Amino acid sequence: MAIVEAVRWTPDGAGVRIIDQRRLPGHFEELDLRRVEEVVDAIATLAVRGAPAIGVCAAMGLVASLNGVVHQKSGEFRATAAANAARIRAARPTAVNLAWAIDRMTARLATLDGSTTDLLAGMRAEASQLLVEDQAMCQRIGDHGEALIPNQARILTHCNAGALATAGIGTALAPIYRAVERGKHVEVYADETRPLLQGSRLTAWELQRAGIPVTVIADSMAASLLRAGRIDLCIVGADRVAANGDVANKIGTYGLAVLCHHHAVPFYVAAPESTLDAGTPTGNGVPIEERAPDEVVNGFGRPTAPTGVAVWNPAFDITPASLITGIVTDRGVHRPPYAFGPVAR
Amino acid sequence: MAIVEAVRWTPDGAGVRIIDQRRLPGHFEELDLRRVEEVVDAIATLAVRGAPAIGVCAAMGLVASLNGVVHQKSGEFRATAAANAARIRAARPTAVNLAWAIDRMTARLATLDGSTTDLLAGMRAEASQLLVEDQAMCQRIGDHGEALIPNQARILTHCNAGALATAGIGTALAPIYRAVERGKHVEVYADETRPLLQGSRLTAWELQRAGIPVTVIADSMAASLLRAGRIDLCIVGADRVAANGDVANKIGTYGLAVLCHHHAVPFYVAAPESTLDAGTPTGNGVPIEERAPDEVVNGFGRPTAPTGVAVWNPAFDITPASLITGIVTDRGVHRPPYAFGPVAR
Repeated sequence: MAIVEAVRWTPDGAGVRIIDQRRLPGHFEELDLRRVEEVVDAIATLAVRGAPAIGVCAAMGLVASLNGVVHQKSGEFRATAAANAARIRAARPTAVNLAWAIDRMTARLATLDGSTTDLLAGMRAEASQLLVEDQAMCQRIGDHGEALIPNQARILTHCNAGALATAGIGTALAPIYRAVERGKHVEVYADETRPLLQGSRLTAWELQRAGIPVTVIADSMAASLLRAGRIDLCIVGADRVAANGDVANKIGTYGLAVLCHHHAVPFYVAAPESTLDAGTPTGNGVPIEERAPDEVVNGFGRPTAPTGVAVWNPAFDITPASLITGIVTDRGVHRPPYAFGPVAR
Repeated sequence: MAIVEAVRWTPDGAGVRIIDQRRLPGHFEELDLRRVEEVVDAIATLAVRGAPAIGVCAAMGLVASLNGVVHQKSGEFRATAAANAARIRAARPTAVNLAWAIDRMTARLATLDGSTTDLLAGMRAEASQLLVEDQAMCQRIGDHGEALIPNQARILTHCNAGALATAGIGTALAPIYRAVERGKHVEVYADETRPLLQGSRLTAWELQRAGIPVTVIADSMAASLLRAGRIDLCIVGADRVAANGDVANKIGTYGLAVLCHHHAVPFYVAAPESTLDAGTPTGNGVPIEERAPDEVVNGFGRPTAPTGVAVWNPAFDITPASLITGIVTDRGVHRPPYAFGPVAR
C-alpha cells in the first residue's frame, strides 16, 4: 500500500520535501523548501496543513533555512536561527503546534554548545526526532484504532485527518491504513466537507492513492447512508479535546455525531494525546473561529449566492463527550466518562 | 414587499415570461417564451424549475406556442396542439406535475368546440386558471403556515421551495412571506443545499430581493446553529408525501429533521395538498433518483475530487413521519398521526 508522505527530508538532506496541497486533487506536485521565505510561504498559504504536519515542517524547515549560513560564527548563527524561527513561528498565528515545534527547536538550540556545524547538526537531530515522534504517534493511533475496525467495515469520515495532515499515516485515517495493512477489507465514505472540501480534495485523494475504496458524498448525504444501514462506524480527527471529552473539530463534525447517535452507529475521534487539553474544562471554553464569507459563497471561482448576502461561516464545532463512543490516541482508546488530566508532551 | 414572479404572461399576453434561473444569483434576467422550442428548452435546461412552476409554465407555454397557428383550420390546429403538447410533456420525463398540467390542457381542448380562435381562447382560459389556482394554493399554504411562525422567529430552510419554484409565493417560503406581510419580524437561515446550491443561489436571492434578512450557511453548519439555540423552527418543501406522512424531499432534508428532533426544534413540511400521494403507503415506496457524479465533484467548473473517484449522489431522501411536527398544505396543517386518503386534484 502506498501511503503518501506529506513531509520528509529531501534526498540530499538539505531541504524539506512536502506535497503541495494547494494543487490537489488536480495536480500531485512535491515542493522542496530550502529558504526561510519558502518555509513561511508554504505554511502561510496551506501548501502544508494539519497541525502535526505543520509542526514537523516548521522544525525541519528551520533547519533547512540554516544550511546556507553554516559559514557564520556561532553567535551570528544563533541570531539568524532566532530570526528565522520567529518568522516561521508567525506564519500562521493560531497554529498551536507550529509555535510548540518552533519553541522546542529554539529551546534545544539553547542547550547546544560548540561550532556552528555542531549547532546545526544538533538542530537537525532534533527536527528528525520530531519527525520520527510524529510518525510513531500516528502508528500507535493506527494500532489502537485498528482494533475497533471489523473486517468488511464501511467507515464514514469527515474533513482530512490523514497522512496529508501529519508526517506519518495520519490520525483519523491511521486505523484505516493499519486495518488494510493487516488484511482487512474496508470501504470509506468521505464527506466532501464544505466549505473548503478537504474531504473530497484530500481524503479521497490519499485513500485512492493507497488503493482503498473511497466514495465521496456531499455532507448532507451522510444521514441517508446511516439510515440505510450502510455505515458501521464513523471516525474523525480533533483540533482540541477538552478535559471532559468534548471535542472541537472541523465544522460538520457535531452534526455527524448527532446522526450517528440517532442511528446507533459508533462515533470515534482519533487524535494525538497532545490534543487533550486538561486546561480547558469543557468544549464551551474553546473559541470558535469564524472565517470569511467568501469561503462559503465564492469558493469555486464564481459567486454561489447573491452579492452582499449575510453568511455564517464557523470553522469548527463542538461535539459533546456524550456523543463520542471512544477517543483513540497514541496511548490507547479512552472511553467515557472522559476525565483528562495534565499530559506531558 | 417585492416577491418575485417566476411565471406570468408577457404584457401582450402572447408569451410566457419567466425568470431565467440558470443565471441566478449573478444575473437577474427575464425570458419570454413564445415558440414551442423555447418552452421545451426552458423546462429541459432548468431555466424554470420547481414542480408547480414547471406545470404552470408548460400549460401557458403550450398556449403561447399556438398563437402563431391561429390561421390553421380547427382540425389542423388540434393536431398542432397535440404535437406541441407531446413535445413539452417530454421536456423533463420525471416531472409529474408537467405531465399533469399538459394532460389537463389536452383534456380541456377535447371538450372545446368552435373555431380555432375559440379553441385557443378556451385553452388560454384554462392555462390562466392553472396560474390562478397555483397562486391561490401558495397563498393558502402561506396563511395556514403563517400561524405557526411567532414574531421574531429565526427560521431554517433547505433548498428552494419559494416563489421561484411556483407561480405564486412558494410553498415552504409562503408562510414566511405571509408572516412578514402581517408585520412579524423573521430571520431566515438558508442551507446552501449541496450539490446544486438551490439554497444559496435561489432562496437567498429571492428573500434578499423581498427585503427579508437571510443568512447563508453550508449544510454542515445547521447542527451548530441548532445547538446554540439560534433556530426556532425549520420549514422545508416536499416532492412527495406518502400516505403515512413520510416525506420525500431534497437530499439533506432527512438529516435536518433528525437534528431538529435532537434539539426539540419544530420541523414543518409545506407542500400542495396535491403532493400527498395516497397511492404510496410509506416513504419506502418512493424511488430515489441517483444523479451524475459530476454534480458533486465537478459542480463549479473545476474538479473538487481526484479523477475517477466513486461518488454517491442521491437527489432526494426520505424523512419519516415520526420526525415531522406538521405538514402544512393549502387545506390546513396536518398533525401526526398522518393518514392521507385519496385527494381530488
